[in-house]
Amino acid sequence: MNYRLIGKYTGNILLVEGIFLLPAIAVAMAYREPQSARAIAIAALITLLPGILLSCIRVHRSISMSEGFVVCALGWIVLSLFGALPFYISGEIPRYIDCWFETVSGFTTTGSSILTNVEAVSHGLLYWRSFTHWIGGMGVLVFLLAILPLAKGDGGPLQLMKAESPGPSVGKLVPKISTTAKITYIIYFAMTVLMVIILLFEGMPLFDAVMNTFGTAGTGGFAIKNNSIAAYPSQLVHMTIGVFMALFGVNFSVYYLMLTRKWKDVLHNEEFRWYWIIMLGASLLIAINVFRGFYPGDFGQAFRDSFFSVSSVMTTTGYCTADFDKWPEFSRYMLLLVMCIGASAGSTGGGLKVSRVLLLFKHLRLQMCQMIHPRRVRSVRMDKRRVDNSVMFGTTAYLAAYLCILIVSLVLVSLDGKGFETTFSAVICTFNNIGPGLGMVGPTGNFSAFSDFSKFVLSVDMLFGRLEIFPLLFLLSPEVWMTRRLSTPIVSD
Amino acid sequence: MNYRLIGKYTGNILLVEGIFLLPAIAVAMAYREPQSARAIAIAALITLLPGILLSCIRVHRSISMSEGFVVCALGWIVLSLFGALPFYISGEIPRYIDCWFETVSGFTTTGSSILTNVEAVSHGLLYWRSFTHWIGGMGVLVFLLAILPLAKGDGGPLQLMKAESPGPSVGKLVPKISTTAKITYIIYFAMTVLMVIILLFEGMPLFDAVMNTFGTAGTGGFAIKNNSIAAYPSQLVHMTIGVFMALFGVNFSVYYLMLTRKWKDVLHNEEFRWYWIIMLGASLLIAINVFRGFYPGDFGQAFRDSFFSVSSVMTTTGYCTADFDKWPEFSRYMLLLVMCIGASAGSTGGGLKVSRVLLLFKHLRLQMCQMIHPRRVRSVRMDKRRVDNSVMFGTTAYLAAYLCILIVSLVLVSLDGKGFETTFSAVICTFNNIGPGLGMVGPTGNFSAFSDFSKFVLSVDMLFGRLEIFPLLFLLSPEVWMTRRLSTPIVSD
Repeated sequence: MNYRLIGKYTGNILLVEGIFLLPAIAVAMAYREPQSARAIAIAALITLLPGILLSCIRVHRSISMSEGFVVCALGWIVLSLFGALPFYISGEIPRYIDCWFETVSGFTTTGSSILTNVEAVSHGLLYWRSFTHWIGGMGVLVFLLAILPLAKGDGGPLQLMKAESPGPSVGKLVPKISTTAKITYIIYFAMTVLMVIILLFEGMPLFDAVMNTFGTAGTGGFAIKNNSIAAYPSQLVHMTIGVFMALFGVNFSVYYLMLTRKWKDVLHNEEFRWYWIIMLGASLLIAINVFRGFYPGDFGQAFRDSFFSVSSVMTTTGYCTADFDKWPEFSRYMLLLVMCIGASAGSTGGGLKVSRVLLLFKHLRLQMCQMIHPRRVRSVRMDKRRVDNSVMFGTTAYLAAYLCILIVSLVLVSLDGKGFETTFSAVICTFNNIGPGLGMVGPTGNFSAFSDFSKFVLSVDMLFGRLEIFPLLFLLSPEVWMTRRLSTPIVSD
Repeated sequence: MNYRLIGKYTGNILLVEGIFLLPAIAVAMAYREPQSARAIAIAALITLLPGILLSCIRVHRSISMSEGFVVCALGWIVLSLFGALPFYISGEIPRYIDCWFETVSGFTTTGSSILTNVEAVSHGLLYWRSFTHWIGGMGVLVFLLAILPLAKGDGGPLQLMKAESPGPSVGKLVPKISTTAKITYIIYFAMTVLMVIILLFEGMPLFDAVMNTFGTAGTGGFAIKNNSIAAYPSQLVHMTIGVFMALFGVNFSVYYLMLTRKWKDVLHNEEFRWYWIIMLGASLLIAINVFRGFYPGDFGQAFRDSFFSVSSVMTTTGYCTADFDKWPEFSRYMLLLVMCIGASAGSTGGGLKVSRVLLLFKHLRLQMCQMIHPRRVRSVRMDKRRVDNSVMFGTTAYLAAYLCILIVSLVLVSLDGKGFETTFSAVICTFNNIGPGLGMVGPTGNFSAFSDFSKFVLSVDMLFGRLEIFPLLFLLSPEVWMTRRLSTPIVSD
């Protein structure tokens, strides 16, 4: 483990965070909120100072896989610890654990909140709160790769991108990783701007449009109204946000394929196909289930609300137009199901990811085939290409780790005794980076009633969910820290 | 697929079942219950007739792996369809779906009941109901292997044993499978007799002693009293049953190792070690959790009740002395955790099995090691031996299948709308062959309120759980039926 290297990267992350805090000061000043402007400014200073110092460290070698993981895990922890400062210094959220929970929830694009009245928060802090979704969605290390000439060498950038990007394997759009990061961010930025413009056309005020777009783009789900998106009466706005949530849950490499007119590859993309099949299928089933009891005579409205909910929950955004906690049990279990499946790999969404679920299904099928025909040797195929055994093993190990963390978290949070359903869905919703759950933490509830210990556990779950477990496990593994120096940086893609 | 072969085995299974029904007639007559004696006799005739006809089929070749799976799945379905007849013909359970649910619950050693008043059932039927646990626990095909000279050849018997025995891999005690089956059943029988004798010494009436032993040995959990084991006030009886439940959840090959004085191998058996660590650890944690609120000043009693509950739930028996549904949430989640882990492979218990959980942990560890040292090639080791990659892949495929079935069942049963906790634990408890769950199906509740459709789904879940998924998946897979004839019977251990 090279401490200089880790220090340098952490410094860069803080530097970027400090710079990102500056627009929040401007917003606070524009809305004449001197107190929050001062708080954000102080937080920016505290963040920039170590950032500048650490990023001056000179390193000469590239980063290894385990170092990439450690940088990523440590970077995100530091990011959220410093990101919580504006809330704490301004005093708008009095306790630091709550500030940290809210910030982790922001960066990991979870969208779970401890705020009981979000409309009382100042504009400057609301801006920062929503912006954490935007930058967290696509990833701060990916952003660094896109703009800074750091992490030279062959293996380094790929390791960082691997550590931060969701999904069983990272697809490089172009041979050069920094170019891949740049393209991804350009598509992301363009889609964000497009959505803001559409919302403005639909009559939403500028501030609201930008904040809701940040929440949608990062598939985060922080709302600036107490009753989330239901606060905007326009059906057009609901549909726009519903569709954009779904679009931000698509693997961004598909958009690159579209831009480069590789339509055949788009059609062959199995994850893309199944993502839409699952989303539309679940919406239809729920619409049929709620139609009679909740939307008598208006199937269109039933489908719109169920599509919005499925899109919101499957992409792990967490916005809501209808209180799905009141829906029949079948609908709630269907939502729980798409919650666990999650969005696509390489998108801003969370969950297990459609491609992982597909790989597990294919793995299961293959095992059965091999029991029937033990002498035929086959391997799992995805998008018409052979899937490497190491990816397969990584996926199954991920599933095992996922279940372990889920169970340990359930037992720890159950100490609070908030009820079976609330505990269960609080853990599922933070771990999958969704936001609101069922019961006490349902669309109309929040996380303020949990104990500090549970808030800590749930915050760690959010980080586990966003970074897909392994980086944080590496950080906690003594073996990683005892490995002094790996022979050479290892490239594997 | 060779239909003659499948017919022959099914016939043998029915023959054995018909013969096993005969003692039930004797019990009914001894207790002067002419109506139930007649019902059981008719059921025995209906079972023996096709049994004798089908077992006359002559087959010359051995059985292949997929045929073994199909025989096993089909055999168990036929077994439970015919086993339900005594209840139906006697009219003591009026509806056939309820009879089938109760019988499947018996054979799969689940112990979930639709009876609201078990004390009203006649002795003859109570005997048959409890006996299904005993034979289902160790397996009816294993019994066939032990007593009949069928399934000659090299691969055949092993395939059958593999299909019916729980756990990621089947350990042969001795090279010959039929001898292995014989030894297993002798140990099983001896332990059963021992337990009956101990219970008699503790003052339990003979009928009660035998019935409770059947329920314990098969880790089934059908009680003959409305409030389960709590009906017997003696603490000694509770402890006896608690300890024997734990003993029947041990891999039977460990007992063989003990009998042959291979103490070193016993000590090296990782599953055996972890089984006790998990069981005693969980008991202690729960005892601490319930001590203050439920057993003020009496930690001994708290530990006894918590050990009984953990032993009952982890071995998937389902007996209860305390109403654990009223315990604090932490205790209930701990019980849910040991429920999912389950007993040891090669025991009569259900669940994922300790060895599978161990394999998954080792798999996870290995994957992490390989990320740190990508060039070092290692493999998962268990009991100081290398675990074959095919076992590893089988285990992960099993986990994937387990989760799929769990989720589909949840969604289907949720259509009944019995509440989040009830639905969740009803599915978990039937799938893991435990019996009572939490909420409406808790220790004091039963399954009678579910719809016929849900009862069907839950019955299928019990079969999936007992046969460990794959045999039933094979039965449903068109590819298996389309494969006309496998080149040669395949042996793989």
